[in-house]
Amino acid sequence: MAEVKLLGAWGSPFSCRVEMALKLKGVEYEYIEQDLANKSPLLLKYNPIHKKVPVLLHNGKTIAESLVILEYIDETWKSNPILPEDPYDKAMARFWAKFIDEKCMPAIWQIMWSKENEREKAIEEALQHLKTLENELKDKTFFGGETIGLVDIAANFIGFWLGAAQEATGMELVNKERFPVLCKWIDEYVNCSVVKENLPPRDKLIAFLRARLSASSWKY
Amino acid sequence: MAEVKLLGAWGSPFSCRVEMALKLKGVEYEYIEQDLANKSPLLLKYNPIHKKVPVLLHNGKTIAESLVILEYIDETWKSNPILPEDPYDKAMARFWAKFIDEKCMPAIWQIMWSKENEREKAIEEALQHLKTLENELKDKTFFGGETIGLVDIAANFIGFWLGAAQEATGMELVNKERFPVLCKWIDEYVNCSVVKENLPPRDKLIAFLRARLSASSWKY
Repeated sequence: MAEVKLLGAWGSPFSCRVEMALKLKGVEYEYIEQDLANKSPLLLKYNPIHKKVPVLLHNGKTIAESLVILEYIDETWKSNPILPEDPYDKAMARFWAKFIDEKCMPAIWQIMWSKENEREKAIEEALQHLKTLENELKDKTFFGGETIGLVDIAANFIGFWLGAAQEATGMELVNKERFPVLCKWIDEYVNCSVVKENLPPRDKLIAFLRARLSASSWKY
Repeated sequence: MAEVKLLGAWGSPFSCRVEMALKLKGVEYEYIEQDLANKSPLLLKYNPIHKKVPVLLHNGKTIAESLVILEYIDETWKSNPILPEDPYDKAMARFWAKFIDEKCMPAIWQIMWSKENEREKAIEEALQHLKTLENELKDKTFFGGETIGLVDIAANFIGFWLGAAQEATGMELVNKERFPVLCKWIDEYVNCSVVKENLPPRDKLIAFLRARLSASSWKY
């Protein structure tokens, strides 16, 4: 039995974060795909509070919430650090990961799932948060500096899912004219081997998003 | 000039968290009260992204977001640890602090600021989250075990603000019959010297909440 197991879902940027971190650290693990439309007894047992993926199982211990799991992985397996050593740099990484989770991702989701008359406001908000990220990145290759770190992993939604969502909807939020720095980061990011090997198939993701959007209020 | 400064607001459970942590560590600091209805150039300069308190200034560096600040304080000043040493215990502390911020506090706020017809649903949700916390606490004195830790500090809203809100509104969410374990924790908590010395004046807080509630849709 594998020492490390991961309950995940192929299309979830959150469980993808954990896979990236485990691969970055070279940790062997067993991946157990979960059907979020029909939650398994295993998922309900191991994450009774949120009933969501990802859930990491390690030596009989259970951890939920992707950012919490990423910090646990970084503290448990020391090679290829995800967080910086210095307390201030670490605080900054946590600040930006939190910003992505609490501001950027909800704003972008909001565009996709909001009613047509609320969409303009949602777009404006998302653009503002993306601009803040663009300014933070400035002339760095990655948010983590020269190598991928916590913020880059947390930003995988912007690095990959957003492009698929743009293609599924025809909406163009991020492009080279508007966000040259972020676009450069996206290029670098999706071409990193640890990222590339762990992303879901793009076509499958686009088809999945299109199916969900056509069941919602989305108008092309 | 003090090495450590804190931009805070007297009625904010979030800036109170930071004060508790600094006092627990014995760190001298200068407290700079902020008027959140009329945000100062200082606050906008040091927290341009969220424009909120608390903001910690340390040796010319700036940190926002209370949970991020608490971890920074714990890593910078080592005495009286706030987070456990073990990676798994640390992950659990982070999980519960996040649960308080993302589930408990929004649900309780929702009761106070929701329309009357939405209040019942909000109460039900808050009770469910509080039950989860009650089960987590079980037979421990504090969430942190024998001494106050990250989760206890994060839960100051439940330890103190909730009681004031109950008095301000006449609503009884937490009582000894419903939540015996949580009520025992509240008693222990508000009687800890580091907590007691850092809480805002109860009467002032109740008056403040009453004034805000009477300007909203609250019906007694």
